Amino acid sequence: MPMLSADPSFRLLAICSCVLVLESLVLAAIAPAKRAKHKGFMNPEDGKVSFGDARMVEGAEHPETARVLRAHRNLLESLPLFFGLGLVYVLAGAPVLGAQICFIGFTAARVVHAFVYLHALQPWRTIAYALGSFCLIGMIVMILRAVLMG
Amino acid sequence: MPMLSADPSFRLLAICSCVLVLESLVLAAIAPAKRAKHKGFMNPEDGKVSFGDARMVEGAEHPETARVLRAHRNLLESLPLFFGLGLVYVLAGAPVLGAQICFIGFTAARVVHAFVYLHALQPWRTIAYALGSFCLIGMIVMILRAVLMG
Amino acid sequence: MPMLSADPSFRLLAICSCVLVLESLVLAAIAPAKRAKHKGFMNPEDGKVSFGDARMVEGAEHPETARVLRAHRNLLESLPLFFGLGLVYVLAGAPVLGAQICFIGFTAARVVHAFVYLHALQPWRTIAYALGSFCLIGMIVMILRAVLMG
Repeated sequence: MPMLSADPSFRLLAICSCVLVLESLVLAAIAPAKRAKHKGFMNPEDGKVSFGDARMVEGAEHPETARVLRAHRNLLESLPLFFGLGLVYVLAGAPVLGAQICFIGFTAARVVHAFVYLHALQPWRTIAYALGSFCLIGMIVMILRAVLMG
Repeated sequence: MPMLSADPSFRLLAICSCVLVLESLVLAAIAPAKRAKHKGFMNPEDGKVSFGDARMVEGAEHPETARVLRAHRNLLESLPLFFGLGLVYVLAGAPVLGAQICFIGFTAARVVHAFVYLHALQPWRTIAYALGSFCLIGMIVMILRAVLMG
Repeated sequence: MPMLSADPSFRLLAICSCVLVLESLVLAAIAPAKRAKHKGFMNPEDGKVSFGDARMVEGAEHPETARVLRAHRNLLESLPLFFGLGLVYVLAGAPVLGAQICFIGFTAARVVHAFVYLHALQPWRTIAYALGSFCLIGMIVMILRAVLMG
């Protein structure tokens, strides 16, 4: 089967997917770092490994850790939607221009979203979230056009 | 590369994916609406933006908001499984009839699941969840058949 | 369109995807079983259906149930990353050897991760998590090579 590595929409999807997975791995690494800093943890076995003492609070997250977890979860909730629609978009042969707007728009919106979430900046977080959602809706419109109207 | 927009399984997957992403975006929009109604919020900066007063409870969700969040999370937990298997199913060239049963069955089950979750209707929620899982298991069986037995 | 069922990377991705979805369905089934055992539940309507009495605690999870939920959530957070990158990897025509290492490595790491999480075994849980993340990073490197350097 001829591969897609020359298809411009696919190449863009590949790069955006890599950026978003990296962003997710970074957020996933920040949470335990915050947890260690604030000496909190969620699993009894983690306390022994990490510090070897009993001064830590089990089962309660420090507000800063909880904020990172919320930002991470919000990203993770949006990624399956983007990956699922993105691959369908490319395989449906939907317009390249739409891919450029929606793929780059979604990726930029999600990177900004995590940054402003961690820095508690409103209304920017809501704006970034809305922009990401609009990109997903744009992808839906163009997928349905490509699939239903050929 | 010839695109898949004429493949019947792919077209069905594309439409089901769009329905499920829209369902997820709708549930994601209901949660903040409930939160605003019950004057609760999770982030200190949200309280200032939304209402400008201090009557709200931070960090605790109203039971109605929490219910929407659980319904949303349950959907989000199932979507990656469907998107991942669905694309593999189509690209493996597994039977169209199986795609029609499992893709439509899963999508219908998940729309019903959110509805009955929000209305607290048991045992319908468990039935809808089980039906969705059976569709995923059906997809697994047909993917393994297509890939292993050619 | 010629299907991918003869492509070795795709076949491996298909099998690994099926294993990971099955693992997720098993973890999803363990949580309610633990909940029933410890007579806890999260939704008022579940109490009536399951037991018909009022001895259960609503809204609080038993530590054992909470542990299963954390293991399940951790798996679910990693699956979209693997499915998204895995399909992009295959469609980009990235090397088969890399697919064998990263797809099998990720799948094995995530199965081990759930097992050691449920048995509270540290530092194995952190090691399994890190191995899974390294496989994702390996996939990113090879996707970018295939897409950017052709």
